[in-house]
Amino acid sequence: MTWTLTSNERTQDSLLLEESLYSLGNGYLGIRGNFEEGYGEGMESIRGAYQNAFHDIIEIPYGEKLFAFPETQQKLVNVIDSQTVQIFFGEEEERFSLFEGKVLSYNRQLHLDKGYADRVIHWQSPAGKEVKLTFRRLVSFFYRELFVIETMIEPVNFFGKVKILSSINGNIANYVNPNDPRVGSGHAKMLSVKETGISQEILYTLNETFVSKLQTSCVSTHHLSGAEGVPEFVKKDSGVEMVIDFQLSGPVKLTKWNVYTDNLRHEGNIVEQGMGIIQNLRDKTFDQILELQTEYMEGFWEGSDIIIRGDDNLQEGIRFNLFQLLQSTGRDKYSNISAKGLSGEGYEGHYFWDTEIYILPVFMLSHPDLAKQLLRYRYSILDHARARAKEMGHKQGALFPWRTISGGESSSYFPAGTAQYHISADIAYSYVQYYLATEDRDFIMEYGAEVLFETARLWLEVGHYHEGLFKIDAVTGPDEYTCIINNNYYTNVMAKYNLQWAAKMYKMMLDKEPEQLAQLADRLKLSTAEVSSWEKAGQNIYLPYDKELKINPQDDSFLKKAVWDFDHTPKDHYPLLLHYHPLTLYRYQVCKQADTVLAHFLLEEEQDFETIKNSFSYYERITTHDSSLSSCIFSIMAAKIGDYKKAYEYFIETARLDLDNTHGNTKDGLHMANMGGTWMSIVYGFAGLRLKENGIVLNPSIPENWSQYGFKVKYKGMRLDILISQAGVKLELVAGEELTLYLNGEKITLRSGKEYVS
Amino acid sequence: MTWTLTSNERTQDSLLLEESLYSLGNGYLGIRGNFEEGYGEGMESIRGAYQNAFHDIIEIPYGEKLFAFPETQQKLVNVIDSQTVQIFFGEEEERFSLFEGKVLSYNRQLHLDKGYADRVIHWQSPAGKEVKLTFRRLVSFFYRELFVIETMIEPVNFFGKVKILSSINGNIANYVNPNDPRVGSGHAKMLSVKETGISQEILYTLNETFVSKLQTSCVSTHHLSGAEGVPEFVKKDSGVEMVIDFQLSGPVKLTKWNVYTDNLRHEGNIVEQGMGIIQNLRDKTFDQILELQTEYMEGFWEGSDIIIRGDDNLQEGIRFNLFQLLQSTGRDKYSNISAKGLSGEGYEGHYFWDTEIYILPVFMLSHPDLAKQLLRYRYSILDHARARAKEMGHKQGALFPWRTISGGESSSYFPAGTAQYHISADIAYSYVQYYLATEDRDFIMEYGAEVLFETARLWLEVGHYHEGLFKIDAVTGPDEYTCIINNNYYTNVMAKYNLQWAAKMYKMMLDKEPEQLAQLADRLKLSTAEVSSWEKAGQNIYLPYDKELKINPQDDSFLKKAVWDFDHTPKDHYPLLLHYHPLTLYRYQVCKQADTVLAHFLLEEEQDFETIKNSFSYYERITTHDSSLSSCIFSIMAAKIGDYKKAYEYFIETARLDLDNTHGNTKDGLHMANMGGTWMSIVYGFAGLRLKENGIVLNPSIPENWSQYGFKVKYKGMRLDILISQAGVKLELVAGEELTLYLNGEKITLRSGKEYVS
Repeated sequence: MTWTLTSNERTQDSLLLEESLYSLGNGYLGIRGNFEEGYGEGMESIRGAYQNAFHDIIEIPYGEKLFAFPETQQKLVNVIDSQTVQIFFGEEEERFSLFEGKVLSYNRQLHLDKGYADRVIHWQSPAGKEVKLTFRRLVSFFYRELFVIETMIEPVNFFGKVKILSSINGNIANYVNPNDPRVGSGHAKMLSVKETGISQEILYTLNETFVSKLQTSCVSTHHLSGAEGVPEFVKKDSGVEMVIDFQLSGPVKLTKWNVYTDNLRHEGNIVEQGMGIIQNLRDKTFDQILELQTEYMEGFWEGSDIIIRGDDNLQEGIRFNLFQLLQSTGRDKYSNISAKGLSGEGYEGHYFWDTEIYILPVFMLSHPDLAKQLLRYRYSILDHARARAKEMGHKQGALFPWRTISGGESSSYFPAGTAQYHISADIAYSYVQYYLATEDRDFIMEYGAEVLFETARLWLEVGHYHEGLFKIDAVTGPDEYTCIINNNYYTNVMAKYNLQWAAKMYKMMLDKEPEQLAQLADRLKLSTAEVSSWEKAGQNIYLPYDKELKINPQDDSFLKKAVWDFDHTPKDHYPLLLHYHPLTLYRYQVCKQADTVLAHFLLEEEQDFETIKNSFSYYERITTHDSSLSSCIFSIMAAKIGDYKKAYEYFIETARLDLDNTHGNTKDGLHMANMGGTWMSIVYGFAGLRLKENGIVLNPSIPENWSQYGFKVKYKGMRLDILISQAGVKLELVAGEELTLYLNGEKITLRSGKEYVS
Repeated sequence: MTWTLTSNERTQDSLLLEESLYSLGNGYLGIRGNFEEGYGEGMESIRGAYQNAFHDIIEIPYGEKLFAFPETQQKLVNVIDSQTVQIFFGEEEERFSLFEGKVLSYNRQLHLDKGYADRVIHWQSPAGKEVKLTFRRLVSFFYRELFVIETMIEPVNFFGKVKILSSINGNIANYVNPNDPRVGSGHAKMLSVKETGISQEILYTLNETFVSKLQTSCVSTHHLSGAEGVPEFVKKDSGVEMVIDFQLSGPVKLTKWNVYTDNLRHEGNIVEQGMGIIQNLRDKTFDQILELQTEYMEGFWEGSDIIIRGDDNLQEGIRFNLFQLLQSTGRDKYSNISAKGLSGEGYEGHYFWDTEIYILPVFMLSHPDLAKQLLRYRYSILDHARARAKEMGHKQGALFPWRTISGGESSSYFPAGTAQYHISADIAYSYVQYYLATEDRDFIMEYGAEVLFETARLWLEVGHYHEGLFKIDAVTGPDEYTCIINNNYYTNVMAKYNLQWAAKMYKMMLDKEPEQLAQLADRLKLSTAEVSSWEKAGQNIYLPYDKELKINPQDDSFLKKAVWDFDHTPKDHYPLLLHYHPLTLYRYQVCKQADTVLAHFLLEEEQDFETIKNSFSYYERITTHDSSLSSCIFSIMAAKIGDYKKAYEYFIETARLDLDNTHGNTKDGLHMANMGGTWMSIVYGFAGLRLKENGIVLNPSIPENWSQYGFKVKYKGMRLDILISQAGVKLELVAGEELTLYLNGEKITLRSGKEYVS
């Protein structure tokens, strides 16, 4: 059970939710879990297919447009729909639907171990025809462009004429909701169909976006087995249909291969490219493709699986999350991982800091190659970040966009967008973390150094000295319920790390690769005096501290504000952002999410344990966790301060947030950052893992009702398996010669293949 | 010369500017100074007619719409155009234009003493026909709905056939500029023509707005004298044309009466209403109407004129400003005075705090009836303000809209809009000031008390106690280069006044009109405990003060920020708002306009002289005066601290801001607040007048190069004439029995008709 997600729901709300939960993807292509045959009449569906980074450019509307407000934003485009397979029974052509006739049994599953989804249905038509239907589908990790559907029909009491209609449709619009700032409010339609056709029984549709002029194509072909039938093709303006009639006398299978190409990744005629790819695929059965998929998934789980004994619900949650992270993460320089992955259109498919702070830590220690790809993407938009810094009035440096796809700032509400300057420090931080985890010196010098230098420059531009301290005014920290404030602790401490590591990296390169450094410094017009200014600012940066409360205030004025009146806030007024004007929220001590507490997690050496503990208690009282990025951090930090009960409670919230739709908006897509947060809650939280310059640190704990849990960590090319039980800790260096680490403060050296048991 | 504005300019820039400068209005109707015959081909013009408060409702677009962001805004509508009168000479119909043929002489004048404008032209057509043309126009102060044009043609060498085409046109759009946040960016077209027609030689057009469904009508009729001609009428979908041919043998006059009605003020069929009005007017010649206008203007100047001896340019400036204020101020409960009056479409015709802080002080002391109308308007939108307070999360109280026409909040960028909570205190302040100036107790008790109580309530809602002090967080003061800050000195000190006067008013009513108070308190559910809470908050309100600089900081964090790098800011980067992102501006000590300095003017007793002087010096260094609301306040306060040279320099900037187009955007309308500021710079600045509870205070000074200046003040039904020369001060109580005032600290009692000379 803990390897499958199972459902037999058919209500409107459940189905919308399951469209996200049962979505399939491979980092390039994502398909929402819609029904091949559609729902009942009048039912709502967000029928979606997405290619990572495939976007249009839309104008941002403003009542008052001020200087340097982004004029346009990128938006992920819902592309050609290839999901449709409709089945008609008998001469009267009774159409199969789960909302007509009698559903004698229905079982839907997402197979996390093998990477596919299916629906098994025992159905009786209104006129009494009884059949069994099985729909299987997968998006291949092996063939990047492939989405394949297999439809099997087995007769029970009905033997006779069956008609199948399968189509690809390019007349597609995005989902919009003008009243929820978390999804797009306009520009539903961003694509037009350029061409449709049929060639050698292959259907194709070529679409183009209105403004970005990106092209996408879907080509599809079919194979029927178990019956004879001659397909007929209908070319329409908006797509192509395949219709096939046959006599049902025993099990019949229709396989539908769909290949998606786009002109970001495919050169020349992308329809022809798709044709070429599908020619090589059409002789592979669903089972053959599934075999490769299973192989891939086994490799993934071998390196990534987390085992929890004692709580199947959580076991399911954590595996589901890891699977969805794997499905959503871009594998090329054009793409990253959007806030909703490839499972929906929420937040318009934008990439945020979520990647660096919530998702990269997972891949860094489990699939460093994926982590490297994500960092490469950030490097690819460095020029955009430099241009944006200039536009914002800075003489130099790089200001990364708060929201983006192709690199341009796409946030339209700057107090909770562009003002979150911390994203530049977050990205710098992630380069350093990746380096600490991998020791990948070539990469850090070729890509990381330039990012560190340019972001360090930004802090010198935005900050200033006041009474001997380096201060940063008018920014917004992670907590979006307090915007445009001075000396946000999170921002300042992350900037400090950024500045210090930029200087450190400079020295490291000077030592190891002076020639490479000279070239880079020349290109960036970087002087040693400037590097000294980073060191000085880092040393003198102001980190607010309140002597009475013995905590770090979130910002200069935070503690002087009134505390939000939680007692008189009705339960249905959460999330607060949907019920209160931002100005009202800004006036109070109330946090949407972890801010200072997150800073204490990321940079724990900056404060003593007591301060961290006090901060946790203080901010916990006033944090609503209206953001899905919050509970996991509170779980980790509750474990850190030894409050394991709380750690566990927060962990439950994070592990099943989407499965249980606790934020109520999973229909718009899965909360990818939270999914990374689940993994972090276990690894950084319960197991107390940290990456330090001198190695891995572990301070394990275990929730009461778990008998044991285990996970695997890749570190500097080695692999370490960690098993924590109520009795103690078992460590095994599965790959690698020798690894020294710190377990509960004690220095331990592991050797290849030998178990360590505490 | 000082009673006329004169021009013979014909360049594109000058003409656009003069459309605002030569605009005519009467508080209800405003007509921009366009040419009857139009400009040269391809030249830009903002051809405009406006009815005060006549608006459509447009959607406010947002990239991200957050809770309680206004969904719509009102927008002043450019209405039916009745300015067109074209003249064609000879059989070849040579059309008169100042951009064809030869202009032998051209003189344009705005007659401030009489309230009309004219153009006198000696013109030779391309084919050599020579004529003299005189266009005269006025918008009547006597007949609210009337705009009249008289066109006179005198032959010089041409005698023969002349054709005149005169039209009304309902196919009108507003001016838009997507790159200037100070004018509208969309929704040019807001009206459609419902009906056009001709009846008894009267042309009419009925228009309706798209969303607000307000109707406006223009009816026009003509009279030709000095020649014989039979008019022909052409009814079009968009309007009506009148064409008349005649033989020119001597002077010929065409009078065109245009009557504007709307269904805000006129009941039933508004075309019929207009017909009825015009029937009574068409037998009145231009000269007869002008006579009434002159009479009205004489009355106005008698009570309001400011005389400056020694500087004709300034004399012209101050009279021009007063005239335009008179033209723009609404006279009914539907209307107020918009930021650009009725002279243009800048700021979308919205009413701001400009009314209370910059314009009401003028009328309060010169035309208290107009002041009372402006206050009545605010009372009429009190329910809107109560609803907005609720929407913003307050349990009770009134939050007045930052921008509005009909009462709903129309600001779309809340950090410099809704966040300016001070507008509610500004309005409360103006009720008190009006009361001090007039002792109009009936009015203050019937209208003012309720406004004072409801605004006092707002401060209790928005503020909170911290360390024993009452503080107000997350608001924006007048300075729009620093937004969403805590304890803005201006806001807090104005809230204090609001709170104290609300309590004082309560006690006054309890004493004088207990019955009326009981009814009001009952209706508002107001208890004495609540009144005590106002007093307490007022007593304990926190007013930031910096001990080292001995100034009031603009807000809690202002002085900790870096000072803007003025030395490296190019001159063409002003106004800064058009060249820097707001976040960049918010990060620095840089002011768009007077903020703390304004607070020191409005409430000078709150600080000692040294603090006020220090604040002036400090803020002067960092204020750009990018707002037109700034220089006048700095002029007044420079006079206050005894720096008369600076007071004079700032005064010059303010007095001729529009005439010299120093802000570069007068084409979008006149800067009404600044016009009030000119008057204030003289009366409150040089003459040092203040209204105190115990009477008028005068501390006069005089600029070096003026021989003398004088003005008149209405005070509690009396009239005081003040003349200040290099030699001394002359005071005369022109109306009233006895008046005690304080001249340079000395108590003086004036008696009816007797001059006092110091």
